[in-house]
Formats: sequence, C-alpha cells, structure tokens
Amino acid sequence: MNLELALRMCEAAVRQAAREGALISVAVVDAGGHLVAFQRMDGARITGPVLAPGKAYTAVAHRMPTADLAPLVLPGGELYGLAGDRYVCFGGGVPLGEPGDGRMGSEVAGAVGVSGGTVSQDVACAEAAAALWEGA
Amino acid sequence: MNLELALRMCEAAVRQAAREGALISVAVVDAGGHLVAFQRMDGARITGPVLAPGKAYTAVAHRMPTADLAPLVLPGGELYGLAGDRYVCFGGGVPLGEPGDGRMGSEVAGAVGVSGGTVSQDVACAEAAAALWEGA
Amino acid sequence: MNLELALRMCEAAVRQAAREGALISVAVVDAGGHLVAFQRMDGARITGPVLAPGKAYTAVAHRMPTADLAPLVLPGGELYGLAGDRYVCFGGGVPLGEPGDGRMGSEVAGAVGVSGGTVSQDVACAEAAAALWEGA
Amino acid sequence: MNLELALRMCEAAVRQAAREGALISVAVVDAGGHLVAFQRMDGARITGPVLAPGKAYTAVAHRMPTADLAPLVLPGGELYGLAGDRYVCFGGGVPLGEPGDGRMGSEVAGAVGVSGGTVSQDVACAEAAAALWEGA
Repeated sequence: MNLELALRMCEAAVRQAAREGALISVAVVDAGGHLVAFQRMDGARITGPVLAPGKAYTAVAHRMPTADLAPLVLPGGELYGLAGDRYVCFGGGVPLGEPGDGRMGSEVAGAVGVSGGTVSQDVACAEAAAALWEGA
Repeated sequence: MNLELALRMCEAAVRQAAREGALISVAVVDAGGHLVAFQRMDGARITGPVLAPGKAYTAVAHRMPTADLAPLVLPGGELYGLAGDRYVCFGGGVPLGEPGDGRMGSEVAGAVGVSGGTVSQDVACAEAAAALWEGA
Repeated sequence: MNLELALRMCEAAVRQAAREGALISVAVVDAGGHLVAFQRMDGARITGPVLAPGKAYTAVAHRMPTADLAPLVLPGGELYGLAGDRYVCFGGGVPLGEPGDGRMGSEVAGAVGVSGGTVSQDVACAEAAAALWEGA
Repeated sequence: MNLELALRMCEAAVRQAAREGALISVAVVDAGGHLVAFQRMDGARITGPVLAPGKAYTAVAHRMPTADLAPLVLPGGELYGLAGDRYVCFGGGVPLGEPGDGRMGSEVAGAVGVSGGTVSQDVACAEAAAALWEGA
C-alpha cells in the first residue's frame, strides 16, 4: 500500500458515491490494518470515522469482504460471537490483494472500507476503489 | 442546538415520563454527538447516564430514530454487527432536524435520547422532547 | 441527591460562570458517581462532557475536592500513578456532604464537577454550586 | 470545515514534512472532533493513525495548540492529570478559527494534528496546514 494509491482509491470511492447519490466516508488501511488515508464527504455522517476504518480493518483482518463475513457472524454461524473493538461485520469493507494479482491470494496488502450510504451503496463505492487497486 | 432549548426538551421528556409512570434519564446532544444537557429523575436507574447519551449519539450518528435502527441490527439485518463504543440500537433515540424544518432533511442538529422506562415509554418521552424542537 | 437540587446547582454554576466570563460545563453526580444532571453553556468546549463528569466522579470517589487531590498525584506524591477511565485530578470537582451538615463528614452524597474555564474559574463555579447544597 | 480544504491542508502538511525530512501522518477534524481527512506518508509510523487524530481532537477540544497544553499537564501544572481516551498533550495539534478570522476567536471550526516526526517537525507541519486555513 502507498499513500498515492490510497488517495486515488479514496477519490474513486467518492466519485462512485456521487453517482449513487450517497454521502460517504472512505478509509484505506495497510496490511497491518492501520489507516493510510481517509476522506469524509461534506455532509456525511459523523459515524463514518468509526465505521469506515472499522470495515477496512475487519476486511484485512479476516482477508474477506465484510459482506461475506456477515452471514458467518449470525447466530449459529461459524463466527458468531466475533467481537473486538474495531470489528464491523456488514458490507462495505473489501480486502486488497497484491497488485497485479487481481484475484485474492493468501496475501492481503490492505483494505478499503466505506460507510455512510446504504450497505449496497457502501459496497459499490468500496468495490470502485478496489477495482483501481486491482488495475494498479 | 442551545442549552435553553435542550433544557426545555429535557423537561418535556420528564413531564411525559411522569404521565407514563416511568422513571427516566434524558440526554440532549449536539450535531457532533456531544452532550448539551442531561437529567435523571429521582429513582431512575444508574444505567441512564450511559444509555440515554448513547441513544442520542446513535440517533445523531445514523440520522434516524434508534427504533428504526433496531430491526436493521437484528441477525440477518442489514446492519447486524454494528458496533461502537457508544452505540445503543433500540428505541429511545430521536434525531433533531434544523429548527423550522420539522421533517428530517439531510442535516441533523442534534438528538435526544431517553432511557429508564420500557422501550415504548422511552420512545414516547423522546418524541415529546423532539416535538418541542420541531415547534421551535 | 435529587434532580431538583441538582438542577439548581447546575444553574448556580452557570450563573457564576457568567460572572467569571467563562463558558463551562457542569455535572452533578450521586453517591455512586452516576450523573444526575449536566449542562453545557452555549459555546463551551466539547471536552466538557468528558471532564466535568470526570471531576465530579473523582471528587465523590475520593471524597475530597479534586483541587486537593492534585498535589497527591504528583510524582513522589501519595497517589502518584492514580489512574482510571474517569479520573480527572485537578481543580473543579467538589464533593457534597449530607444536607444540613455543612462540613464534610465521612459520608458524601454526590459531587459537582465543572470544566471549561481556567482551573480557578472552574473551582469558583463548582463551589457556587456546592454552597447551594450546603444551604439545602 | 469541508473535505476539499481538509485535503489541501493534508497536502500542505505532507509537503512541509518532505522539506523537514520527516515521515508523518496528518489528520483534520471538524468542530466536533470527528475526522474529515487523514493521510499517512509512505514509511511513516503505524502510531500516526492514533496520535495525529488524537492531537487534532485535543486541539479542538481545548481550543489551543497542543504545544501550549504540554506545560500545563506537567507535574505541578494546572492541568496535570488531564485524561481522556483521545488526549494527546504535546506539540503537533493546532486549532483552526473561522476562515477569514486568522486569529483564534471564541469559535473553532476544527483542528489539524500531525505525528511522526520530532515534536518541532510535527508542529511545523501542522502550522503549514493551518496557515492554509487562515488564508482561506
């Protein structure tokens, strides 16, 4: 992960949000789950600074989109009871593979997390950012 | 948000609680989720100082009544797994639009949170406070 | 402690702040350290909702004014290393004895905490509130 | 505060860091202390995502540069014992007055926080960002 790419991913998420008519926050974290870049659109909720980095952290921590994690944490699910300070287990967090890889291998280099719209809007914005990563 | 109006909202919530036969705590927060006024009725639970500001914070953070948030955080709901230090995701928190607006637009100026009665009592008390805001 | 008296103490602190030219937050807690009433003046810092209840909690927890606690927590002091989520160990928190007592006995019924001005302004506001308690 | 200006402030801090030979993180928060933009330079410490927003929060909460707060929290200082989740009480956080104001009035619109270099480097970077605000 590097700052320049993280900024371009934030911009891609914000552009997608504008298309969706959503006001979002977007966070990009590195392989250690630590914030590299964050942007909150004017008028976006104050909860974005908590939830967007939380989704990104959760995505990199579990190496899967938080949308895929959602069913696993349901009562009876494999990860029911998953808890932690920064866990946010619904759609909007997307892990990032090594550049040039395109598909998720065993390594993640970071993640993007988006919050502020509906869950499907958040996912669309995060995927717009991740697409940029995969093309890098 | 201002202190005078926040105090009148607290009083409105307490009057409604008296009508309901409930003992409540009521919190009013600003647009940043920070406490402006708080009142706990004599005999009300000691958890009120945590839950009432938590409901108010959650309502302003998500720009919706916490009662509307409750089904979304159920297992299988869109926001199941919503987490955060100050989140309280059941009825009793009501966001406040800009004065004169009446209806929730894209902006919230604060929120009121009530805790101590049944959930429906808490909601009734919070709405009594919010009605005063909408009339301001 | 009761809400009516707590409200009058908050008002006394706010009146004193106006005299001092300070913008403050004031918190009144019961014997358990739990918030009974809180008021933040228009324009007062957002840190008041953290520090004013913290000073009140600390004053009731240690049964002494936080101003008296300040030297004890200095390096080499008896309580150096005192720590805890809600501790605030400088002036502005004042414990409240049983009504009619006037002097601090072994019992405290609550405390008042003020934050937002200089420490001496905060102390003056907290004492104005406490004076009302002692006269009750 | 708005995102466009927050981004330009981040860039100004990063440019100053390059001049100083420092690797920093920079955070811009709004009047409620909530993150608007954050950037961490390549190779900057992983503690930046905690300390830079913490300094910005502290600066907006106390309406003063965190460098000015540092002597007050020393043993024997007026605010020794100041505590709170997000407090960082040494140089690198700078509050932002209303645009066009230039000097700090009674209102703050947000703050910038920088972490990663020496304290004097962090201050220089935060001031470079704040200068941009004052000129806006």
